[in-house]
Amino acid sequence: MKLVPPAPARPGDPLDAIGTPSLVIDLDAFESNVRQMAEFAAAAGVTLRPHAKAHKSSEIAKRQIAAGAKGVCCQKLSEAYPFAAAGIANIHVSNEFIGADKTAMAVELAAHVRLSVCVDAVAQVEALGPAAARAGVRIDVLPEVDVGQGRCGVTDDTQLLRLVDAIAAQPALRFGGIQAYHGGAQHVAAHAERRQAAQLAAGRAAASLRALEARGVRCEVVTGGGTGTVEFDARSGVYTELQPGSYIFMDGDYGSLEWSGMRRPRQSLYIASTIMSATHPGRAVCDAGLKGVAVDSGLPKRVAWLADRAEAPLDYIAANDEHGVMAVRDREGDGGRAAGRAGPAGSWPLRPDGQPLRRVRVLSRRARGDAVADRRARIVALSLRVRGSTPACTALTRK
Amino acid sequence: MKLVPPAPARPGDPLDAIGTPSLVIDLDAFESNVRQMAEFAAAAGVTLRPHAKAHKSSEIAKRQIAAGAKGVCCQKLSEAYPFAAAGIANIHVSNEFIGADKTAMAVELAAHVRLSVCVDAVAQVEALGPAAARAGVRIDVLPEVDVGQGRCGVTDDTQLLRLVDAIAAQPALRFGGIQAYHGGAQHVAAHAERRQAAQLAAGRAAASLRALEARGVRCEVVTGGGTGTVEFDARSGVYTELQPGSYIFMDGDYGSLEWSGMRRPRQSLYIASTIMSATHPGRAVCDAGLKGVAVDSGLPKRVAWLADRAEAPLDYIAANDEHGVMAVRDREGDGGRAAGRAGPAGSWPLRPDGQPLRRVRVLSRRARGDAVADRRARIVALSLRVRGSTPACTALTRK
Repeated sequence: MKLVPPAPARPGDPLDAIGTPSLVIDLDAFESNVRQMAEFAAAAGVTLRPHAKAHKSSEIAKRQIAAGAKGVCCQKLSEAYPFAAAGIANIHVSNEFIGADKTAMAVELAAHVRLSVCVDAVAQVEALGPAAARAGVRIDVLPEVDVGQGRCGVTDDTQLLRLVDAIAAQPALRFGGIQAYHGGAQHVAAHAERRQAAQLAAGRAAASLRALEARGVRCEVVTGGGTGTVEFDARSGVYTELQPGSYIFMDGDYGSLEWSGMRRPRQSLYIASTIMSATHPGRAVCDAGLKGVAVDSGLPKRVAWLADRAEAPLDYIAANDEHGVMAVRDREGDGGRAAGRAGPAGSWPLRPDGQPLRRVRVLSRRARGDAVADRRARIVALSLRVRGSTPACTALTRK
Repeated sequence: MKLVPPAPARPGDPLDAIGTPSLVIDLDAFESNVRQMAEFAAAAGVTLRPHAKAHKSSEIAKRQIAAGAKGVCCQKLSEAYPFAAAGIANIHVSNEFIGADKTAMAVELAAHVRLSVCVDAVAQVEALGPAAARAGVRIDVLPEVDVGQGRCGVTDDTQLLRLVDAIAAQPALRFGGIQAYHGGAQHVAAHAERRQAAQLAAGRAAASLRALEARGVRCEVVTGGGTGTVEFDARSGVYTELQPGSYIFMDGDYGSLEWSGMRRPRQSLYIASTIMSATHPGRAVCDAGLKGVAVDSGLPKRVAWLADRAEAPLDYIAANDEHGVMAVRDREGDGGRAAGRAGPAGSWPLRPDGQPLRRVRVLSRRARGDAVADRRARIVALSLRVRGSTPACTALTRK
């Protein structure tokens, strides 16, 4: 007998039979997000290349491509392998890499997919070119231009042109355009300020284009943008390709941004959790803790009950490894403080000492989308369809 | 051809050939920690049952048991399956659970291992007992007593005795003792205050023992304790079994505690990372970011160079998904601020624009041990032995 934990759910199971903690996808919201972004990019006349680091799921990549995406981005070479193995034919590694092992991986991938990569140092080009030539593969190389983030990317035209020359000197490499991504601009809350940050980035990318033009270099692709700036980037006249990732799931941070020029994508990914202990008045302990939820952008929010909805709402107040500590919120509404922290609260959904514990499930918004997805993101049943609950969860993921 | 990423290293590889980002174990420190804790528990006359949530590795569990541990703790039932499948014969689930799926998992596990579980509600006992009886298995059940953490566990003797009665009413269940764990006490920095917190917890456990004695209930096991309080718990005269987990690897938080009554376990787990971009004066970007390192207890610390050690040290200042942003520290010593944040700094280990990038590796202390181990903790080569570098890394893990 093989001793493995049972699947967290099977297609057809009712929602409250899902083993917890689990990631749960609201398929309606997810499919709406995939469709909306594809239509938005098509209407703007730009290529959509969603970032796969948000999901790390070839099933989701295939759905994005079926909706119109050209391919996917990966943030590192090892991340690209499962997509290549699953038949995703066009992959852009939107990051720098260095070292013989990484060069060998790029060359191996390029034998299977149309591969493009980013560089910001001539040494990378000079390592990659001969290795690609020896293997008989062709790789598109995109210098990354720092357009304001201050992280990776060349910082002046001289460096950019030196990279273009270095690429041109390698017969197995092809200048594929530039990458101009500004991560910080994605998360600026105010719409007008986010637009300004995006326009500044696009302006810097445009300056790089002029420098290339002045040297007679044609730049087919300007790739960049993310969920937060995609509406501005698409209309910038500079970007030809957009890399949003988080839009498929959304998260607490992106959800809190001010949206205006396009419809806000819907939250589609939740963590289902069970209250497994409730011995203290005003408190409950659920089974989604530090190992199930990322807390780098704050604790999980907006708890929704799938059962006992009439009872007092809970706030998630502390994450331990496999425990989420929750406190009953005041009945005064969303603005009420968590009375449970200070002691007994009014209404209590679970009775301590001997009363039957009910299997209460909690759906909480992730603190950060992709960080969580990275921890336990393998989709096990996108086709699981269950109805009759709110929110309508129709698919489920679990590590 | 199977398209999978290459192994990050092979036994015999030099240290600087390890693919990054990777967890790297200093086997000497790890083995010293395993040995020291086993000897400490034996000398104190208490059972050692290390917590496996710190490593989730059956290879490590086997080494702990070979050194003298009785078995392991798991924090949830699904976590216990791989250990049971690997032949770990004695597993304690040190947490509550509820629901038909979880009950079925406990019953299945109990058919393969000697299983003990925690409860703090009669409903759990009444669900588990009949299921165990139907399957013909025996499960040891330990009521959890809240000894100060305010999380799970019964809060008075009445509740405890009610659980003991409920267990006694189930022929397939056996009262196995009590669990008395105080998570918060583990991380109190000052030695005297930590001792006080541990003594308070032990005192509460002792009060529960007296309540059981008064009812004529024999309590074989008092299990609890962690890396931070193990020295006090072992000498408390109350605990019979200790559950430390993090001692095998240590982490920045545990490492910062004041140690006195026993030797501080050594840091044995590191993240190896590569600088993959350096286009800004005073800055460098490495490949260990949010998806490679937990930041819930702070950013990675104590960066040690494996190459170019004579050059300026770097501080890790920001974690993005797959980027770690680092700034050159002032030459004025450890107290110096990161001059790189403000602009150009004196010495710079990597030259931007065209100079050959060297494959510089960074070993950084994890912010939190088990959270990281959870993200990418499968040991792929405990026997990998490489010499001649500092720290002497002799084994390697990677997701």
